[in-house]
Amino acid sequence: MAKQGQTVEKDQSQIINGVDVTQLMENIRAIRQQPRLADFKFRARNRWFEGGLNRATIDGFYGTGQEIAHARAFSLDADEPPVLLGEDRGANPVEYLLTALSACMTTALAYHAAAQGLEIEEISSEYEGDIDMHGFLDLNPNVRKGFKEIRVRFKVRGEPDEAKISELLRKSPVFDVVTNPTPVKITVEKK
Amino acid sequence: MAKQGQTVEKDQSQIINGVDVTQLMENIRAIRQQPRLADFKFRARNRWFEGGLNRATIDGFYGTGQEIAHARAFSLDADEPPVLLGEDRGANPVEYLLTALSACMTTALAYHAAAQGLEIEEISSEYEGDIDMHGFLDLNPNVRKGFKEIRVRFKVRGEPDEAKISELLRKSPVFDVVTNPTPVKITVEKK
Repeated sequence: MAKQGQTVEKDQSQIINGVDVTQLMENIRAIRQQPRLADFKFRARNRWFEGGLNRATIDGFYGTGQEIAHARAFSLDADEPPVLLGEDRGANPVEYLLTALSACMTTALAYHAAAQGLEIEEISSEYEGDIDMHGFLDLNPNVRKGFKEIRVRFKVRGEPDEAKISELLRKSPVFDVVTNPTPVKITVEKK
Repeated sequence: MAKQGQTVEKDQSQIINGVDVTQLMENIRAIRQQPRLADFKFRARNRWFEGGLNRATIDGFYGTGQEIAHARAFSLDADEPPVLLGEDRGANPVEYLLTALSACMTTALAYHAAAQGLEIEEISSEYEGDIDMHGFLDLNPNVRKGFKEIRVRFKVRGEPDEAKISELLRKSPVFDVVTNPTPVKITVEKK
């Protein structure tokens, strides 16, 4: 594992922030030659147990022109806390959304800084989002069901200045999905 | 644990789909009397390790007028697969987003069906979302960084018909956040 904030050479690759920048540049060259290598399909499936308890499983995806299996299947349990009528057997769905946002903004910063040759030693961040349950509970049609607002606070030690960090964080795909509309097509089948 | 699709009585509570509907109705009555009980703040924090590897931690939230600790802290590791320059030590950020969406749509269906007295025996679902890496890699400014589209397929065994299921799935807060814009306010501090 490469140490954070360190540029190292490994097998003639340049590693910055733990990201193999040589490989990244090779990937970009390959995509320029064969644009369809950039088409990815990410997947999950979910099984409900009871009440707020359900389990998502993620075991592979499509990318670089082929089906790719993960090293192992990732199994993620969600539940609600008792005050929301669950038994706290996992983070709840909106906490998984904040997890996704946190992972994605962090990775966007580490990867894009690496691509620009900027070393980072430390990234930590905090997320808080407001939900008014009048929305989910159908008590007020003017209140949205999801987050009204999400606040994010990053603390970063490394070369990029605050303006550059703010710019790179916004390259996150999950940040894009949260801040902009994304079409979701639903099919329902009765068994 | 209540069996799925079964209405049971427990301590004079009516349990449908594993959801304590008596308690749900009491919560709604309490919110009608004190609207601010409906204000929730969900939280996560994240620490970067290196490259695509980072860990989100979720240990509590604010709701029903008080700070509430989860039964335990939930720790969720994210990483990228090798083809995206990681080492597959966890689901990746956009897979966490699909997990959040899956958990939330499933829970919305189970809870709202229970509130309407509709028993459900089985819910399973599949998610697939398209990402064109030209966006994240800054190779084409006209390609978005996040999902272009997400397709969701539900299979349900139980009382509600397909139209009712479709209606209830759309009550999910994460579905709202994905399909509509949500403001994200970012603060950056250099250490």
